[in-house]
Amino acid sequence: MGIKVQGHPLSPAAQRVMLCLAEKNLDYEFVSVDLTAGQHKKEPFISINPFGQVPGFEDGDLKLFESRAMTRYISQAYADKGTPLISKDLKKMAIIGVWLEVEALKFDAAGHSLSFEILIKPILGMSTDEALIEPLQGQLASVLDVYEARLAESKYLGGDEFSLADLHHIPIVNNLMKTKVKSLFEQRPHVKAWCDEILARPAWKKVLEGARV
Amino acid sequence: MGIKVQGHPLSPAAQRVMLCLAEKNLDYEFVSVDLTAGQHKKEPFISINPFGQVPGFEDGDLKLFESRAMTRYISQAYADKGTPLISKDLKKMAIIGVWLEVEALKFDAAGHSLSFEILIKPILGMSTDEALIEPLQGQLASVLDVYEARLAESKYLGGDEFSLADLHHIPIVNNLMKTKVKSLFEQRPHVKAWCDEILARPAWKKVLEGARV
Repeated sequence: MGIKVQGHPLSPAAQRVMLCLAEKNLDYEFVSVDLTAGQHKKEPFISINPFGQVPGFEDGDLKLFESRAMTRYISQAYADKGTPLISKDLKKMAIIGVWLEVEALKFDAAGHSLSFEILIKPILGMSTDEALIEPLQGQLASVLDVYEARLAESKYLGGDEFSLADLHHIPIVNNLMKTKVKSLFEQRPHVKAWCDEILARPAWKKVLEGARV
Repeated sequence: MGIKVQGHPLSPAAQRVMLCLAEKNLDYEFVSVDLTAGQHKKEPFISINPFGQVPGFEDGDLKLFESRAMTRYISQAYADKGTPLISKDLKKMAIIGVWLEVEALKFDAAGHSLSFEILIKPILGMSTDEALIEPLQGQLASVLDVYEARLAESKYLGGDEFSLADLHHIPIVNNLMKTKVKSLFEQRPHVKAWCDEILARPAWKKVLEGARV
């Protein structure tokens, strides 16, 4: 009746949750969902997530879907374990909250699609839709312009400390760094320094080692 | 140095924040941003939101952008005023959190675009892109299928009580009810009952009265 994550080791959303658990030094059971066999679209998985997307999460009798809802819960329920990822100060938390929204609604909208088109589709034997790449890169570049200005005045997106707002970016940043989109990050010095810093976190290395198994 | 909302009375995101303030019985100053003159893309507005989108929010020295970050902050900072919109029980809050993500990433992705194409563009003298409507309606229908199942077992999305997860839907549901997309809601009896219930909230009527001025 401990913590269980159902997902795929290469799913950025599942990685986001495993990373959060690693930052919190929490043990969990990982249950692999066979995406190629469509296990995520069938029972029993869709009883956890009716939208049929990994990951699924359980903590005792609590069952959740949506990776960002899982990490918020973990950060609060295990606030005193491992790395603090949220703030008890409501105004500081509100600023972290702004950048949590920006990640989900602006960064991920472009970044996840680019990662899927350029990196994941070829792995799955599918063709990249080249017509999508340029507009998505333009969209991501605009987001990173805002990040560059923000990170010139603040070490992390949510403030002076690493937080859930930074953490949520790591799986997609890691994927994009393996592609030509890397240049969008490297052209912006504060964004580049932030990427280097967040990708070097020991908890992320632990997740990547797990994904290699 | 009280609460200030900068936005446009017809912006669903600004309405979301005003509705939250109305549920909390909080007074605030509303500052109109002239979107047709592009005020939201210039200083001083972009010093609040570097992405240049309304609304902007201030509470004393705190400045926020992203409407959903504002409502989370208001719900926590003024937890004991007006309608409770979040739960202090971490597991109940985690479930509310799931549906907050679903609204932002699934419902709004389809619903906001439909509202913009069918309702807002004609008001602005622009033409609806008809080719987008059918796929967006299909996308929204799939989301509402999940809502129908959820609302058959739970009065509100986040549980037995009205919460921020329901509140976030109200401005877009209200807009779509004025269009042909209304049928997607009416075909699903539990969704229909939920819409009737949330649109009838006195706080929402207050926001609509303000918008008519």
